[in-house]
Amino acid sequence: MAVPEVGIGIVGYGMMGRAHSYGYTVAPVMRRLGHRPRLRVISGRDERKVAEAAAAYGIDSWAGDWREVVSRPDVEIVDICTPPGTHAEIAAAAAAEGKAVICEKPLAVTYSQAASALRAVERAGVLNAVGFNYRRLPAVSLMKRMIDEGAVGEVRLLRATWLSDEFVDPAIPFDWRFDRAMGGTTIADLGSHLIDMATWMAGPIAEVSGQSETFVRERSDRPVTVDDASAALVRFDSGARGVLEMARVAVRRPCDFTIEVNGSQGTLVFAYARLNELLYGDGSDRAELYGMRRIRAEHPSHPYARDWWPIGQGVGYGASFVNHLGDLLERWPDGPWEPDFVQGATVQAVCEAIERSATERRWVEVAEVTASDTAATK
Amino acid sequence: MAVPEVGIGIVGYGMMGRAHSYGYTVAPVMRRLGHRPRLRVISGRDERKVAEAAAAYGIDSWAGDWREVVSRPDVEIVDICTPPGTHAEIAAAAAAEGKAVICEKPLAVTYSQAASALRAVERAGVLNAVGFNYRRLPAVSLMKRMIDEGAVGEVRLLRATWLSDEFVDPAIPFDWRFDRAMGGTTIADLGSHLIDMATWMAGPIAEVSGQSETFVRERSDRPVTVDDASAALVRFDSGARGVLEMARVAVRRPCDFTIEVNGSQGTLVFAYARLNELLYGDGSDRAELYGMRRIRAEHPSHPYARDWWPIGQGVGYGASFVNHLGDLLERWPDGPWEPDFVQGATVQAVCEAIERSATERRWVEVAEVTASDTAATK
Amino acid sequence: MAVPEVGIGIVGYGMMGRAHSYGYTVAPVMRRLGHRPRLRVISGRDERKVAEAAAAYGIDSWAGDWREVVSRPDVEIVDICTPPGTHAEIAAAAAAEGKAVICEKPLAVTYSQAASALRAVERAGVLNAVGFNYRRLPAVSLMKRMIDEGAVGEVRLLRATWLSDEFVDPAIPFDWRFDRAMGGTTIADLGSHLIDMATWMAGPIAEVSGQSETFVRERSDRPVTVDDASAALVRFDSGARGVLEMARVAVRRPCDFTIEVNGSQGTLVFAYARLNELLYGDGSDRAELYGMRRIRAEHPSHPYARDWWPIGQGVGYGASFVNHLGDLLERWPDGPWEPDFVQGATVQAVCEAIERSATERRWVEVAEVTASDTAATK
Amino acid sequence: MAVPEVGIGIVGYGMMGRAHSYGYTVAPVMRRLGHRPRLRVISGRDERKVAEAAAAYGIDSWAGDWREVVSRPDVEIVDICTPPGTHAEIAAAAAAEGKAVICEKPLAVTYSQAASALRAVERAGVLNAVGFNYRRLPAVSLMKRMIDEGAVGEVRLLRATWLSDEFVDPAIPFDWRFDRAMGGTTIADLGSHLIDMATWMAGPIAEVSGQSETFVRERSDRPVTVDDASAALVRFDSGARGVLEMARVAVRRPCDFTIEVNGSQGTLVFAYARLNELLYGDGSDRAELYGMRRIRAEHPSHPYARDWWPIGQGVGYGASFVNHLGDLLERWPDGPWEPDFVQGATVQAVCEAIERSATERRWVEVAEVTASDTAATK
Repeated sequence: MAVPEVGIGIVGYGMMGRAHSYGYTVAPVMRRLGHRPRLRVISGRDERKVAEAAAAYGIDSWAGDWREVVSRPDVEIVDICTPPGTHAEIAAAAAAEGKAVICEKPLAVTYSQAASALRAVERAGVLNAVGFNYRRLPAVSLMKRMIDEGAVGEVRLLRATWLSDEFVDPAIPFDWRFDRAMGGTTIADLGSHLIDMATWMAGPIAEVSGQSETFVRERSDRPVTVDDASAALVRFDSGARGVLEMARVAVRRPCDFTIEVNGSQGTLVFAYARLNELLYGDGSDRAELYGMRRIRAEHPSHPYARDWWPIGQGVGYGASFVNHLGDLLERWPDGPWEPDFVQGATVQAVCEAIERSATERRWVEVAEVTASDTAATK
Repeated sequence: MAVPEVGIGIVGYGMMGRAHSYGYTVAPVMRRLGHRPRLRVISGRDERKVAEAAAAYGIDSWAGDWREVVSRPDVEIVDICTPPGTHAEIAAAAAAEGKAVICEKPLAVTYSQAASALRAVERAGVLNAVGFNYRRLPAVSLMKRMIDEGAVGEVRLLRATWLSDEFVDPAIPFDWRFDRAMGGTTIADLGSHLIDMATWMAGPIAEVSGQSETFVRERSDRPVTVDDASAALVRFDSGARGVLEMARVAVRRPCDFTIEVNGSQGTLVFAYARLNELLYGDGSDRAELYGMRRIRAEHPSHPYARDWWPIGQGVGYGASFVNHLGDLLERWPDGPWEPDFVQGATVQAVCEAIERSATERRWVEVAEVTASDTAATK
Repeated sequence: MAVPEVGIGIVGYGMMGRAHSYGYTVAPVMRRLGHRPRLRVISGRDERKVAEAAAAYGIDSWAGDWREVVSRPDVEIVDICTPPGTHAEIAAAAAAEGKAVICEKPLAVTYSQAASALRAVERAGVLNAVGFNYRRLPAVSLMKRMIDEGAVGEVRLLRATWLSDEFVDPAIPFDWRFDRAMGGTTIADLGSHLIDMATWMAGPIAEVSGQSETFVRERSDRPVTVDDASAALVRFDSGARGVLEMARVAVRRPCDFTIEVNGSQGTLVFAYARLNELLYGDGSDRAELYGMRRIRAEHPSHPYARDWWPIGQGVGYGASFVNHLGDLLERWPDGPWEPDFVQGATVQAVCEAIERSATERRWVEVAEVTASDTAATK
Repeated sequence: MAVPEVGIGIVGYGMMGRAHSYGYTVAPVMRRLGHRPRLRVISGRDERKVAEAAAAYGIDSWAGDWREVVSRPDVEIVDICTPPGTHAEIAAAAAAEGKAVICEKPLAVTYSQAASALRAVERAGVLNAVGFNYRRLPAVSLMKRMIDEGAVGEVRLLRATWLSDEFVDPAIPFDWRFDRAMGGTTIADLGSHLIDMATWMAGPIAEVSGQSETFVRERSDRPVTVDDASAALVRFDSGARGVLEMARVAVRRPCDFTIEVNGSQGTLVFAYARLNELLYGDGSDRAELYGMRRIRAEHPSHPYARDWWPIGQGVGYGASFVNHLGDLLERWPDGPWEPDFVQGATVQAVCEAIERSATERRWVEVAEVTASDTAATK
């Protein structure tokens, strides 16, 4: 009955470090796993804070430098929870040490960085995953499963919007989030999730036409180098069409997203504000019942439902991390893990295509990502 | 106490003819008007049906040819409710007879037609209006008023979506709606309302990048020459950004639209499915009440509220016609009427810019509309 | 093609007089009727106001005394829109003149009055109807039809709530609404609709246990003699159980009601705030689609749908009057009309049983109503 | 930095044992606690299953008999997660051993049992708490806080409903839930939460009038001795009035509850289906903003918000346990703990009053609970 342990090292003790710690703590309680995660070490530059975090999260030790984490022999998986601009370097170093790598999204702040991280893990032959956790919300997973099962027929239209008010207040001082080289764009911060879910559900994106705007152009007398809001028209390889929008200047929009797919036979709609539900309009339903079902995505037959609570009780944001990290741990050490760095780089390629399209005011094709590829757009 | 009459002639007895008849019938019951509409004549090509319609709608007489309507001396206002491809010709003929003209949207199926209709009414010096009735929903009017009063600060983002399933079924036989020359595009059919509201609320649109797709390309062995679904990125003159989407192939989406504006100080959201309500997120609200108000747009202080029912009871689609036609009758015969053909042509210019952009795969500027202008895009 | 007219006389020019005028005006436009209503006369005590109302509503003439209305030879239907305390007397007088009677709800302010009105119309053998207009909302009619067709199986539970803020402000001066003898109780004002719908859907109510409270006990230094809020437990003859609640002191509740039925096989929920929709939970639905459908109650197969607008557009409060009066006119002059005074008196019997139960603090049986019956409770 | 531990023993490994294990596991990760819970032992009669549960939940050991748990020296807190009929005996035994006791709701299946459990903990002088976890949902806690701060003025009306479909299927075989002596009533199972929240928010309940029904009267050829559905009218000591309803036979109602309070100045509405939100109608709000705010109950100023995620992300059912157990651990070992057994017995007194009222068909007063009191109703 003794479950073997797998050693985890977390780089970064901020909100994501906390969310992942929650995930590792809860996953073994909610589901049967072949390996129990053992949180060996967490790192961060503020030693007092990282020590406190280690104590709070029940982590054995802490370090002031991420290099300690990636080089420790008792760490088998390095989990990267730092600002986006640092991801690629840490991922490459961890891979070079032979560690499996779980990296928060976006994988990087440029496609080139993302491709280099991808090359690093492929060269090292280590398991790799990107933190597109929203896929693991039960209702989002159900949406994907229903699309695969034909519930909407052939996908024709997809729209997804992510609205937050994080950047509304012009008095927020400059920090790394406003710095293109470290925090990356709104496209990448919010949009990467949408792009991940869109391509997961509707296949690869062929080309995009984007627009971007920065409304608050200076903070603390420094130029803001990221967009406040962007949007893109999208053509999928399949011929389906999409619209994506992401904004951090939408007053009183508290970081909800919505994603809707219209197919030849049906419609599915997910809205984060009601995250345990999924709307389904079935074109073959009896006409006198015209309308959509609000599926409560907690039935025992639904993804992850058996890991959680009786129907009607609902999960929150944290469940996405539990389900994600649980899935990865379940497949330890043989894999496969998904979404992996190929998907991370693919999403980055779309982000970069949108960014370039907005700058160059033209449709931009999204390059196919392969391990040796470095050009996101052409 | 005797209210003078104004003679109305309606061209077309279909759904729009019916909705306008409803509007003329109800307006004088719900509000005090300086002139009572007298429905003199309705025309249509199927004589049995138009005779039935005249009887049902309480119209004095009927005609088989619209030319009879526009030339009758007792008709002072010609109200055009026919398919879009016929609007411009009828409008020009009515104007030439010195009649005021109310024309259903879209004003035409091309910008060139729209501009010619505009020139005709301007030359004749007659009052003119386009049937952008959704403006006159109480909650939409309230939204406009609140924006004008500064409730959201400076408008930054606008998104609007109109989803219908009208064209989902591939077995629907070919008719004029699928014919570019007669029915016009989905951009014009659904999108013209969105463009009207967007420009009303956020000012002129400077340029667009659009995409269009036709998923069911043949019906009754004839090629479908209109789009099933389109979308556009939009830049307003003010620097605000927008996203518009319109589709007639969204299963179990029964013709609802939504429009949201995010400004520097607040957010307003209208969703047709709850048409008596308006969501308002006020950025200056106390933080511990973080969220949006669901305003019941029926308070006596709200637009049109005193014309209708006690708060909480709500109006439906028909009220938009009553309010629109009531506003026009109230300003008879001196005007001004709005939205007028200038706005109708302006909207058409945007529709055409989106259509051209989708075809040419580039951003397209929207030309400024003036009476003598004929180029919608450059 | 000439449709014969039927002469209508309306007693009362207030909100209900206006709503009924709207109904008579619109009904013939929206549906084919055998008789076209001709509004002959409207009465009211304020001669200036009633004259204005007659002009606005397109009514041929006006009178200062309701007795003129009931005695006019050209009036075939008397429609009573006055305060509840006057209904029974006017109805009896109209019946005595051989007029058909349409009476706003509640039929009276006591069961005894209601029974006497019932006796009067039965003695005179005239058609009679009570203004339970909410039944005629398309979604409420659909709910009734689905229950009858077995969509929920055997009805077990019913709950209905009506919340308004009409009486919240203690500064509202005393008027007839606060006077038990003229305006009747909150039970009768709001609850009578709920009781009508409840008994229509689930059959007769056998007994009740009620509670009532008046929170603002004086207005303009006069005692308020009606309840602000009441509620009742209900046992139906069938064995089903119900809960009814009605209140006029619920802040920011703008007069919405909800009604839900849980049967052995399904659930139906109507909420007035989304009056064009009906929620349906079908117990035999596939488990993996667990949840409720939000039926858009405007499909051509739904009640009244063909009289109105394309699906998705929706109707408002006014449609309930159009549909109700349209149904009555359609059956003129042979009938039957429903709901009639028997139902009006039955509802009154339940109201009185709740009122008595609240006073006497015990369960009270509801008496069966017959034409000769006068005892509402035993 | 070393946090002292407190030894926990859990009795029962079912859904509640799991939920509490989750709570103990997560609480120290999400908030700073003076004592870290150490799960020493879990008990249950099925040794294989309890052993598995111990392994899954990270509990040091397991036992086949609850008596082992209550007598272990290293257990300081006994947490009772067994069927209701067993609570009182286990609680008394734990108290007698000097253990603090956390007991799942309802505290017992009769008031007499509840009172005896209360006497036991009071005699022993041990900390005691009842698992009314829903109080600890952030939005419910915010609702209570806002009421206390005067956001609704004087509470006048309260309504709460809990609908589940747990008992709909007549083919579910008989088990302890259908046995009055072991599982208790629907009143106690679902209603006890409502009564707890109602009395927390609006003060003591003075008297009740109830009704109960069992629709499926036999299962597995055994008589069902609990109600399927019940409801009660309620008078609070303050003069406020309430309506409570609870049912386990509402098809496609997945265990949601709603609670609404209408006061002299405002309205608050919580609906579990949107558990991170709270509707607030403020009577002093500007009239032209008439409506309710949908407060996102995750602002840093809100209860528990700082323990969880950034605004907009939301928590689920599990958070109620984390927050509840976290609060208890935070106050270890000095207390006070709340809600305690006095509240547990008070709620039981109301449950029993409703049950008696339904049987005896009369209003029943709720007895005041004191440590030495045994009569729930008089």
